[in-house]
Amino acid sequence: MNKIAPSELILNPDGSIYHLNLKPEHIADTIIFVGDQNRVPKISKHFDTIEFDVQKREFRTITGWYKQQRFTVISTGIGPDNIDIVINELDALANIDLENRTIKTTHRQLNIVRIGTSGSLQSDIPVDSFVMGKYGLGLDGLLHSYVAEHIFEKEMEDAFIKHTHWSAKKARPYIVRGSEILEKKLSGDEVFKGFTATAPGFYGPQGRVLRLPIQDVNLNHKMDNFTFNGVRISNLEMETSAIYGLSRLLGHQAISMNAIIAN
Amino acid sequence: MNKIAPSELILNPDGSIYHLNLKPEHIADTIIFVGDQNRVPKISKHFDTIEFDVQKREFRTITGWYKQQRFTVISTGIGPDNIDIVINELDALANIDLENRTIKTTHRQLNIVRIGTSGSLQSDIPVDSFVMGKYGLGLDGLLHSYVAEHIFEKEMEDAFIKHTHWSAKKARPYIVRGSEILEKKLSGDEVFKGFTATAPGFYGPQGRVLRLPIQDVNLNHKMDNFTFNGVRISNLEMETSAIYGLSRLLGHQAISMNAIIAN
Repeated sequence: MNKIAPSELILNPDGSIYHLNLKPEHIADTIIFVGDQNRVPKISKHFDTIEFDVQKREFRTITGWYKQQRFTVISTGIGPDNIDIVINELDALANIDLENRTIKTTHRQLNIVRIGTSGSLQSDIPVDSFVMGKYGLGLDGLLHSYVAEHIFEKEMEDAFIKHTHWSAKKARPYIVRGSEILEKKLSGDEVFKGFTATAPGFYGPQGRVLRLPIQDVNLNHKMDNFTFNGVRISNLEMETSAIYGLSRLLGHQAISMNAIIAN
Repeated sequence: MNKIAPSELILNPDGSIYHLNLKPEHIADTIIFVGDQNRVPKISKHFDTIEFDVQKREFRTITGWYKQQRFTVISTGIGPDNIDIVINELDALANIDLENRTIKTTHRQLNIVRIGTSGSLQSDIPVDSFVMGKYGLGLDGLLHSYVAEHIFEKEMEDAFIKHTHWSAKKARPYIVRGSEILEKKLSGDEVFKGFTATAPGFYGPQGRVLRLPIQDVNLNHKMDNFTFNGVRISNLEMETSAIYGLSRLLGHQAISMNAIIAN
């Protein structure tokens, strides 16, 4: 079997993976993603026992047990480029033999639940409710670096591009379905579903204007009004599309829940 | 004068700016960017006195004095989306009256020096040398969310697109000149100059293959071979193009220096 070169799969001197500083035995099958490193202990304080706690850069990881189930909480930092690091490295921990640098013959599937915060694009989704991304709508282009056409919802993408008169200079928007299994498990009365749009920045890419004029001042309004088969864009944040895209390509289950902090 | 709305310019309850947690008086005119929050005190330990030290999420800021000059060191985290946050918020601290939410009538110019690490694309640039980005080559698309055509080097961009057969699904590559003033100040014998290419991710976007096939397996090789008026692509990292683009749009001086840790 082909060995993965050290320039592709970078390990630290202790054998842990480059950015996350983790070894395979440190991660649970169920993984909670948050953005802010300070939110990791806020979640793990509810654990019955803590097994492991490590941080490198903005990536803090705590693994422990809650009611007989093992969980890992990890902070991803901000944006799709950080997600590229986190998902690829978690998958490597699960599915690559780091010592031999070969892909394992049996696939280990991870369950990933992102708990984020975001603004809502819809005035009828109240502050403090949750939105679940039925689909991730990627305005960030990350997935186009991979062979990914087969997981995209092309018809929806075309409708979105037409509706928004999307600039051809920006990356083509891509749409990926979240995990149907986790969607079913985490649905509830207070949970609104929709497209979660993911922007590759906080100011211009999300339509905020401080001192710089932006390419399309009407983009957020056009996003408010987009529907496809009755599904609306519920919210705008910075990670979900990349999580859905990479998880689906790698054979993991992923769903994104955002607490609405403004609308 | 038009007031900037609270949804665009978000302040914390103490009046500091949203992500960076800074007030205008906390930043020097000369600002050093690093990626890793743990690298901030490694730089500021050389300061003669420290004035201010704060951290929120991955953004740690220390301001102090070194040989009668005031410096701010700040960690940006990873990627162009974080740079969107850091540069827009630093500029707001310098050039927006936060209390009145109006743009100041006099412009305060910042000098930004990024000190990063990266791999080199050229085998004759030795490990431990520095590369300076004469131009930032953005593969990340961030700048297309802004009105930015007037700062782009269109002829170079077209040559790069043609040379690489750049996928139209990805964002159009953009090229922005770094600061000529800072380039002159920081040049030296150990400093190689070139295009610093900025990718919106670490694995697929930089041509690394773990378990996922990538869209263009030859992209790094094509980047190695690209030259324009004798300038080569010296290195590949995740921040420079966004720093150059936003700094130029906002009227700041910025240069990026990368220590080569692999080639």
